[in-house]
Amino acid sequence: MILTVTPNAALDVTYQVDSLTPYATHRVSAVAERAGGKGVNVARVLHSLGEPVLATGLAGGPTGVRLRELLAADTVAEAFLPVAGDARRTVVVADRADATGFWEPGPIVTAAEWSAFTAHFASLLQGVRVVVLSGSLPPGVPATAYAELLALAHAAGAATILDADGDPLRQGLRVQPALVKPNAAELHALTGVRVDGPDAARRAVETLRELGAGDVVASLGGGGLVAVCADGVWRARLPEPLDGNPTGAGDACVAALARGLLAGQPWPERLRDAVALSAAAVLHPVAGTVDVDSFHRLRTQVIVESC
Amino acid sequence: MILTVTPNAALDVTYQVDSLTPYATHRVSAVAERAGGKGVNVARVLHSLGEPVLATGLAGGPTGVRLRELLAADTVAEAFLPVAGDARRTVVVADRADATGFWEPGPIVTAAEWSAFTAHFASLLQGVRVVVLSGSLPPGVPATAYAELLALAHAAGAATILDADGDPLRQGLRVQPALVKPNAAELHALTGVRVDGPDAARRAVETLRELGAGDVVASLGGGGLVAVCADGVWRARLPEPLDGNPTGAGDACVAALARGLLAGQPWPERLRDAVALSAAAVLHPVAGTVDVDSFHRLRTQVIVESC
Repeated sequence: MILTVTPNAALDVTYQVDSLTPYATHRVSAVAERAGGKGVNVARVLHSLGEPVLATGLAGGPTGVRLRELLAADTVAEAFLPVAGDARRTVVVADRADATGFWEPGPIVTAAEWSAFTAHFASLLQGVRVVVLSGSLPPGVPATAYAELLALAHAAGAATILDADGDPLRQGLRVQPALVKPNAAELHALTGVRVDGPDAARRAVETLRELGAGDVVASLGGGGLVAVCADGVWRARLPEPLDGNPTGAGDACVAALARGLLAGQPWPERLRDAVALSAAAVLHPVAGTVDVDSFHRLRTQVIVESC
Repeated sequence: MILTVTPNAALDVTYQVDSLTPYATHRVSAVAERAGGKGVNVARVLHSLGEPVLATGLAGGPTGVRLRELLAADTVAEAFLPVAGDARRTVVVADRADATGFWEPGPIVTAAEWSAFTAHFASLLQGVRVVVLSGSLPPGVPATAYAELLALAHAAGAATILDADGDPLRQGLRVQPALVKPNAAELHALTGVRVDGPDAARRAVETLRELGAGDVVASLGGGGLVAVCADGVWRARLPEPLDGNPTGAGDACVAALARGLLAGQPWPERLRDAVALSAAAVLHPVAGTVDVDSFHRLRTQVIVESC
């Protein structure tokens, strides 16, 4: 069983407008809602592949209730802990050209609520073999949050994947997650290395491993993945980058890596799945969702090279 | 007592961002919520002037509950009827330069819900001397909605003000509201007259009166008001237009006109109040809210001319 954790889960709201014009007023022609947040997307992708998964995190107020209703409608198992503050919304305004995002900061979480969540998290670990910790922390949650959860997961014998950035990532690395999946911007912020290609990514990843990371898979957008692991170093990519909606591609990548970790898949196969699943998310018009047929088709096209 | 009706009440949400950049993702630094919709704004302005007022309309779902909580926090008396659909939100994204608006369409209201609202409205009319009907209709509410409510109000002996546009305004005119307050765009849409100044406004207003309007006060933004009434024709304006936030200025104008109608104020005084209260809304940074001190100061500056 895989457990995903989304401390700052969101109700993703998409507004369809004709054309975004700064400083004008727009009539929204259609409103779509979806449960969101990085760990929620990971859980949805794993569920669409038939993988047993449970989504947890913090989700309070009427927005949290709505988010959980939408997860239930998608038949994704969830055990979110309600808090007093209303869950955040992410509003995406889509017009004929592209999408513009507005991300609320999230509710203020009290120390007592965070403490209750760590106990709740520990109670869910029975039978869990892989824990995925993803995304930003809401205001009030300490930067050591992921470090605390990683320690609890390791004590329960679960393998861990951390997909975060900034201080929560830095603090988490000290507890040695089995796998981290930074993108180029996150690598740059943490190591100071400007990641302009696979070689720079590899240098940055070595620094990350010195900070405590176990295996590292760096995602370079259309440039594919660079993996630096105990077993070796690989690069995996499609022959040509795909056009589409890259939002949620990183979450699909993490879903594949979690599945590969659970199954003990050889690294080249994990990376093949991760590139193909990311690409299947890029091809899907709804962010954070994959087309399973595209995934199987794209798998055969991925190029994996040992470096 | 004044009763305001807002069939498509909204939760007004303001997102503060650094700078709006189309097709980028923005971290929202602050989220502010307020009960909104044109009739709600009218009620809030009347309440801030100490005028007894009751706000009604349709407001369903968790967003409707939140909207009513916020009205209660503002100590505005309300008797909204809950419906199954969630009330709409209006999202305004404010950056250092200006504001960009996104208006959800509103919930789908069933025929049974609309019928229940007309009965609810009729039950509120006891002791009401002025009814203000404002704003758009949510999907499912018939274009004859305002006509129906006007007829009920007239039967109960209340005077009526209609501030709407398009077909709901056209249908409402047939039932002869005591007063309508179109702006230049609404006049143009209804009469085909391009309203580029007070003379054109007067021509358009004459057409409107032929369609059934009683007294008409046309709002021309910084150009002030043109009133065509049984008692005469007036123009009222400030010596110079003000800079500020014009959102809600029309609702403040309607609030002054409702108060003047209730008190039987002479027309020049009503118009003086209406211009000053609109200007006090323009000066207030929060849309749909007035600064009462500014109102009293600006009253002395309004120029009212008989035409």
